[in-house]
Amino acid sequence: MKHLSDIGEDELIRRLVALVPTGKSAEGPGDDCAVMDKGGERLELLKTDALVEGVHFLKDAEARAVGWKAVARVISDFAAMGGVAEHFLVTVALPGSMEVCWIENFYRGMGDCMKAHGGVLAGGETCRVPEGSAAVISVAATGSVERGKAVLRSGGKVGDEIWVTGKLGGSLAGKHLSFTPRVEEAKWLVEHFKPTAMMDLSDGLAKDLGRMALASGCGFKLETELLPLTDGCSVAAALGDGEDFELLLAAPVGMDVAGWLERFPHLELTRIGVLVEQGEGDDLAGGWDHFA
Amino acid sequence: MKHLSDIGEDELIRRLVALVPTGKSAEGPGDDCAVMDKGGERLELLKTDALVEGVHFLKDAEARAVGWKAVARVISDFAAMGGVAEHFLVTVALPGSMEVCWIENFYRGMGDCMKAHGGVLAGGETCRVPEGSAAVISVAATGSVERGKAVLRSGGKVGDEIWVTGKLGGSLAGKHLSFTPRVEEAKWLVEHFKPTAMMDLSDGLAKDLGRMALASGCGFKLETELLPLTDGCSVAAALGDGEDFELLLAAPVGMDVAGWLERFPHLELTRIGVLVEQGEGDDLAGGWDHFA
Repeated sequence: MKHLSDIGEDELIRRLVALVPTGKSAEGPGDDCAVMDKGGERLELLKTDALVEGVHFLKDAEARAVGWKAVARVISDFAAMGGVAEHFLVTVALPGSMEVCWIENFYRGMGDCMKAHGGVLAGGETCRVPEGSAAVISVAATGSVERGKAVLRSGGKVGDEIWVTGKLGGSLAGKHLSFTPRVEEAKWLVEHFKPTAMMDLSDGLAKDLGRMALASGCGFKLETELLPLTDGCSVAAALGDGEDFELLLAAPVGMDVAGWLERFPHLELTRIGVLVEQGEGDDLAGGWDHFA
Repeated sequence: MKHLSDIGEDELIRRLVALVPTGKSAEGPGDDCAVMDKGGERLELLKTDALVEGVHFLKDAEARAVGWKAVARVISDFAAMGGVAEHFLVTVALPGSMEVCWIENFYRGMGDCMKAHGGVLAGGETCRVPEGSAAVISVAATGSVERGKAVLRSGGKVGDEIWVTGKLGGSLAGKHLSFTPRVEEAKWLVEHFKPTAMMDLSDGLAKDLGRMALASGCGFKLETELLPLTDGCSVAAALGDGEDFELLLAAPVGMDVAGWLERFPHLELTRIGVLVEQGEGDDLAGGWDHFA
């Protein structure tokens, strides 16, 4: 009898998707979000994301920060496609002993992030879990991206250079609860850098870069000495900590960062490697797996 | 210090919605689903709904039936507005010790319901809860309804007759896991019965009829002797058991059920009361509150 902890998250998703109708979307499950073509000027983006007490946040975490994170994670996924958030649906499953002020502050934090980075609440559900069970928060949202401007994980080409925004590693020290989703940065990159593939770094560079390369039918060669490390962090931390929520992208050779430095003087944009033929290049261990 | 169990679900939602931006939707949080006008021929519907192990299903429940229920509940909400489901986003938060075949069968059950009643999977997430925690399943979806055909809870008028489909009560004996969402029935009613208000019965007639009347600015007078009872069920069970997932509607006086009987010969459509002036009529106790 196999248990969830015996198979990886990616393998589980592949098995499950085969069991339900998935219809004709521009892109199916597997990218940062699903892309739906409903015939309008903009494509619709769909995403759901969950936070579990004891896994994604601790019981004594500040509720307002957890609310920020719950919304910022989803906005980060939309940004990674070049899009913006529109309507949020929020489910909070909590024990009845939870204090009302906790959930109120959680909602305040979600509101802070929507006001700062886009989107509004369209609906929500509150339900009870048995006492002693972990609280589970699920945030689903619709978003949109201009037709022709959606950047998938799968468009990378052999020879494309690999870039990353910001610094990597050390998220658990606090950044994982207070990060800024890179909405404006992604929009600028789509306009000026013409990325062939893009995603946000949620499970650590080691795992996520492998995913982007695989989706693009490529391998990758990483120049670890170029990695932009958070102060005090090792290369291993930059590869494996996860929850950086920076943008990872592939772009044609020779892009110039001068325009970026002018527009975003306080945020690094660093070339860290190159896409190579599949089966060649590096094979990184590490990163976050939800059931490992 | 107030806890969630000290205040009702409706009061909690009122408090929370005030803390986040909600934008301009055709209808905000509070109806069966949110209605969004994006300018097309159809309005977009949005809904999220959760199932908690030990609350909405038992640990030994058949996984395929739980999957059916998870999707059918959401489709039922879209039907209650006169609409259909389009794209599903599914989050399953499970302990790592959960057997892979359980979640596979759960997905099969979701697929059964999508194939039978509409909608496709657009994306999903699997995540881990600590061992011993209840499994939580959250299903969000987009749907749509023809412009001008959306039926809200809030359109009921004093004097409108109150109708209900099917039989009420006794859902825990099994119906709650295998019910049929009333998609075709709702579509027929919108065309032929011109309902002024409609919703699906999830928390029991006692609670849900009060909600529909309140949203419509009315009271209600129930003729309990007319209630269509599930075999072996009492009036109290019909009022309070919840999870009937039948349609509750208000319609102008004098609607004729002849056409219904021809179209749906095996499903009751029963007049059970009338909307009256607010502050008059009945005041029912009972029904399901998620935190009571």
